[in-house]
Amino acid sequence: MDPVDPLKACIVQLSRFPGIGERTATRLVYWLLRQAPDVASAIGAALQALPAAMTKCGRCGNISAVDPCSLCEDVKRIGGILCVVERPQDVQAIEATGEYRGRYHVLGGAIAPLDGIGPDQLNISSLLHRVGPESIAEVLIATDPDVEGDATALYLTKLLKPLDIKVTRLAHGISVGTEIEYADRSSVARAIENRREL
Amino acid sequence: MDPVDPLKACIVQLSRFPGIGERTATRLVYWLLRQAPDVASAIGAALQALPAAMTKCGRCGNISAVDPCSLCEDVKRIGGILCVVERPQDVQAIEATGEYRGRYHVLGGAIAPLDGIGPDQLNISSLLHRVGPESIAEVLIATDPDVEGDATALYLTKLLKPLDIKVTRLAHGISVGTEIEYADRSSVARAIENRREL
Repeated sequence: MDPVDPLKACIVQLSRFPGIGERTATRLVYWLLRQAPDVASAIGAALQALPAAMTKCGRCGNISAVDPCSLCEDVKRIGGILCVVERPQDVQAIEATGEYRGRYHVLGGAIAPLDGIGPDQLNISSLLHRVGPESIAEVLIATDPDVEGDATALYLTKLLKPLDIKVTRLAHGISVGTEIEYADRSSVARAIENRREL
Repeated sequence: MDPVDPLKACIVQLSRFPGIGERTATRLVYWLLRQAPDVASAIGAALQALPAAMTKCGRCGNISAVDPCSLCEDVKRIGGILCVVERPQDVQAIEATGEYRGRYHVLGGAIAPLDGIGPDQLNISSLLHRVGPESIAEVLIATDPDVEGDATALYLTKLLKPLDIKVTRLAHGISVGTEIEYADRSSVARAIENRREL
């Protein structure tokens, strides 16, 4: 098949997505060709519009269509508490629970010296600049429960505690719905370590 | 999140693809936002260009950027033999083997009375119009080995045999690399039925 073939070009482009190989891309393209032409146009237009439409919120670092983002601007949010996450999609995951009503701060990753990511590469100084003006009393650290997330949590705790801020972290333990028998070993270990009195 | 949010819009659009749910679409969109802006633009542009760029070959019914398609126009193809397939992607699969050097005819499906697809909904009359002018001596039927594909093969055989055309069909049996122990029952049955003398 001709390399400048629009069909082939579309397969090549879709294969750039992580987890989408040439086989899946081919399936998707042939599916598209069986739909009304506006399906491909609508999907294409949304993708093309994306990069220019999205920006980083100057206050919290989250990805947003407006700066400051709607979460930072929402007056119904509880003030005085910030939830610190690694990535914008973590904000979505926490928002989906409806359990948290404060504002967020997106670090843009976690401390990973082996990958050359130190505190200076993350949105940490902007976090420190927020705690005073926003009268932050509590910082809830929601970094991942892995080596990098733990290191980041420890680093932030050391920075924030001296400022007389309550530093908390998401609880780790056996996930809801998991039977103890099948839970992974480190989750069980954390569940024992963080056991609660009834 | 705002329903007119470009990020949300992009997730909704990508979720239209079969096999891509909201979770995968979200992952893809956040991945896009971490890439250079031209990645989203290039993927979006290729998708937008697709429907207008592709047409159906008036001769063989394959999807192509030009009409007649490059396979029909290729003078190096062996004349006198047509391979009949259900879908354009089947042409690609057979081309990938490099074993077949004739031309194709794409039916656009298979006879499926329960789905309301009869011979009139398929490119069968155009096939019959080709056999004379192109002096077709053999029609290789490559429909799927399922009820609809078998019915279509039978129907085509009944139409073509009286025209003194040799009608063949792809061999079905145990797929290469499959151990007999693990082969599905109907493949083994077909392999016995179609056994060859050594």
